[in-house]
Amino acid sequence: MILSIKIVSMKKLVLFAIILTLASFSTMQQKERIIFFGDSITQQGAGPGGYIIKLGDMLKEKGLQDKYELTGAGIGGNKIYDLYLRMDDDVLAKNPNTVVIWIGVNDVWHKRTSGTGTDADKFEKFYNAVIKKLQAKNIKVLICTPATIGEKSDFSNEQDGDLNKYSNIIRDIAKKNNCELIDLRKAFHDYELSNNPDNKDRGILTADGVHLNEKGNQFVADQMMGALIK
Amino acid sequence: MILSIKIVSMKKLVLFAIILTLASFSTMQQKERIIFFGDSITQQGAGPGGYIIKLGDMLKEKGLQDKYELTGAGIGGNKIYDLYLRMDDDVLAKNPNTVVIWIGVNDVWHKRTSGTGTDADKFEKFYNAVIKKLQAKNIKVLICTPATIGEKSDFSNEQDGDLNKYSNIIRDIAKKNNCELIDLRKAFHDYELSNNPDNKDRGILTADGVHLNEKGNQFVADQMMGALIK
Amino acid sequence: MILSIKIVSMKKLVLFAIILTLASFSTMQQKERIIFFGDSITQQGAGPGGYIIKLGDMLKEKGLQDKYELTGAGIGGNKIYDLYLRMDDDVLAKNPNTVVIWIGVNDVWHKRTSGTGTDADKFEKFYNAVIKKLQAKNIKVLICTPATIGEKSDFSNEQDGDLNKYSNIIRDIAKKNNCELIDLRKAFHDYELSNNPDNKDRGILTADGVHLNEKGNQFVADQMMGALIK
Amino acid sequence: MILSIKIVSMKKLVLFAIILTLASFSTMQQKERIIFFGDSITQQGAGPGGYIIKLGDMLKEKGLQDKYELTGAGIGGNKIYDLYLRMDDDVLAKNPNTVVIWIGVNDVWHKRTSGTGTDADKFEKFYNAVIKKLQAKNIKVLICTPATIGEKSDFSNEQDGDLNKYSNIIRDIAKKNNCELIDLRKAFHDYELSNNPDNKDRGILTADGVHLNEKGNQFVADQMMGALIK
Repeated sequence: MILSIKIVSMKKLVLFAIILTLASFSTMQQKERIIFFGDSITQQGAGPGGYIIKLGDMLKEKGLQDKYELTGAGIGGNKIYDLYLRMDDDVLAKNPNTVVIWIGVNDVWHKRTSGTGTDADKFEKFYNAVIKKLQAKNIKVLICTPATIGEKSDFSNEQDGDLNKYSNIIRDIAKKNNCELIDLRKAFHDYELSNNPDNKDRGILTADGVHLNEKGNQFVADQMMGALIK
Repeated sequence: MILSIKIVSMKKLVLFAIILTLASFSTMQQKERIIFFGDSITQQGAGPGGYIIKLGDMLKEKGLQDKYELTGAGIGGNKIYDLYLRMDDDVLAKNPNTVVIWIGVNDVWHKRTSGTGTDADKFEKFYNAVIKKLQAKNIKVLICTPATIGEKSDFSNEQDGDLNKYSNIIRDIAKKNNCELIDLRKAFHDYELSNNPDNKDRGILTADGVHLNEKGNQFVADQMMGALIK
Repeated sequence: MILSIKIVSMKKLVLFAIILTLASFSTMQQKERIIFFGDSITQQGAGPGGYIIKLGDMLKEKGLQDKYELTGAGIGGNKIYDLYLRMDDDVLAKNPNTVVIWIGVNDVWHKRTSGTGTDADKFEKFYNAVIKKLQAKNIKVLICTPATIGEKSDFSNEQDGDLNKYSNIIRDIAKKNNCELIDLRKAFHDYELSNNPDNKDRGILTADGVHLNEKGNQFVADQMMGALIK
Repeated sequence: MILSIKIVSMKKLVLFAIILTLASFSTMQQKERIIFFGDSITQQGAGPGGYIIKLGDMLKEKGLQDKYELTGAGIGGNKIYDLYLRMDDDVLAKNPNTVVIWIGVNDVWHKRTSGTGTDADKFEKFYNAVIKKLQAKNIKVLICTPATIGEKSDFSNEQDGDLNKYSNIIRDIAKKNNCELIDLRKAFHDYELSNNPDNKDRGILTADGVHLNEKGNQFVADQMMGALIK
């Protein structure tokens, strides 16, 4: 009797174990892996107080922490072609479900600071190549416009014209590749119009005109949350 | 009798001649000498169909041709410091009553094309020095903002940010030096907003994004007429 | 008898055919496919009078035309990262035995002309990545230093310093990756020292300081012949 | 008697005073006023351990301190046109006998760092204008070539080509204006060839590739001494 009971128990235990495994497997499956792919702004975004950390905190508050895994893949000084060069190792190897690309500031900025920005046509070409490679693996791609190089709200920051130009290119790329657009440039500009009455070039959402301060990290996290979780 | 009459006539003739001379001298005195001091846009402005020629035609139509003498002093590629270097020979030596300064496009443009633009602080310094030297001779000074490097109306021409920045500097200079401002940048931008629906980068008021076409020369002539003749 | 002889003949014929086929196959195998991978200089090099055409002619004179197949893969304006982007389609898809890479002029030149040159560290990174990908397919790689941007022989061409810097980088890359180096910069400089007594900036081996004239194409063909056929 | 003696004494005293005054005046006349006119290198040259201070010390050692008065007139970031703008206040107002001009590093360097270098033809134009204005006042003018932007000895510092080009321009200016040339670029390069075996870009005669270290200040003082005191 005992033996037969034991056998039954054994069967039940095995069954239970299988169900548990399947359940946990199914939970793992549901966890969406999101990689944030970009430059120094994203590199800092994965550090203390950064926008990726803030996004994680916001998910926790909503009780969604088990549904998403957020990973930063930002490297300082990166331009679009740097993303292309390192995407196999830094993104594809990690099998993400979703990739958020935020690049473009250095492609414009370095024209002035070191003569090594990116031509507009090459920018578009490499951007398309990055997206194509991601979409070929069924990865969802969201792309962002570059926010600011200088926070003046009257388009009198030295490189505003070029930033607007590259943002237009990115908006076109989003349409053509059927990617969701997170239009940070527009969002920042709208914010500056209302919140930068003295037309300052830094100190509103950035520390130095480019890199996010506390408020800027929260602002970006809010923008991304709206696009990522619906 | 005849002799005495002759003598009287002689006296009258001399008197008449003196009056005539004085009158013509007084007319000469009233003729206001205006020099247009600038770069290639002004150099072309003094050529066929140029804005200075058009201004002259407009004065003729108003019957004011004897009241004004218009002279072009534009040289291609000039920046503010070039004006400073050649102002003794090309402007002061000609004893103008009024000088219209229109400079700044190359100070910005050459940053991109040859790495030889003008630093913003130096731009202001030289601009002030040019004005001071003119005002010290009681010459009336009117100054213009640079119009365009690319005619797109959404501030997405590559150097729009820098052009806006230098235009702000010029607006400040006008205030501080009590000069009249001819705000061509603003006037052009307003015009583009209404008249450039396809957001083209040339062909509206310019031939190449910088140098004026027929319509552009007329537009500038109109702007200047409003500031010069009141 | 005749029949049996015929059968024997038939067998011999088949055998002969097989041998012929194998022989021709083996000849095909021996034909070395060489791709010249570069920028506008190489694009022109594949055109009339170009260095690749001249190399072909030289091989014909030596009776080696059946041993080599030369293909140009140059595109105007290309920098090292453009080669990386298009190497799958334009080089690997063609199964070359040997690739000659000649790149670098635009990586330096565009710093001055459009603010879009290539950072030295990125240049090295992409160059290594291109070589690694070729060598992984057992393709022999030869690499060239950029020749000139201006032909003055006293290192007073505006970008001589940077060209020397990038040439040093390429020399290092050749050593580290065990590639043969075709040191065109050194060869050109040596030639200019003896053949440019008036220190002219063009017209000796180039038409415009960068792109090869007749003599320059022959000079490069000679340099490459020495490296390719030993 | 006493009175008459007194009167004689009085006369003698007055005579003596006059002679003394004339003597001291004549000494003052003999003191040669030398102004060093330049950029940050010269600004630092007038500070502790700077080349102008070292020159003063060397004159003292030779007992020549009463014969020369050395004055620094260097301002950081200056290019040739800045010298032209401030020469009235900073040089002519001080009535120098001799002016040593050392400029050119920023005219080249700022092309790379901020897009605001000086065109070669404008460089020559302003340099000639500065010299003409000094020579018109019978001031002796000595001019220097720019030393280094990077100390590598194989002309592989990024801007070596342009520095060589502007140095050639200065050598021509010296000849055409009959100015003595202090060829610091050549002197530095010769020194680096013998004293920089590891081809380092700084630390030999400069701290950062541009600004002089202790040894560099002494080296420049030696070069200038040779040209100034013969």
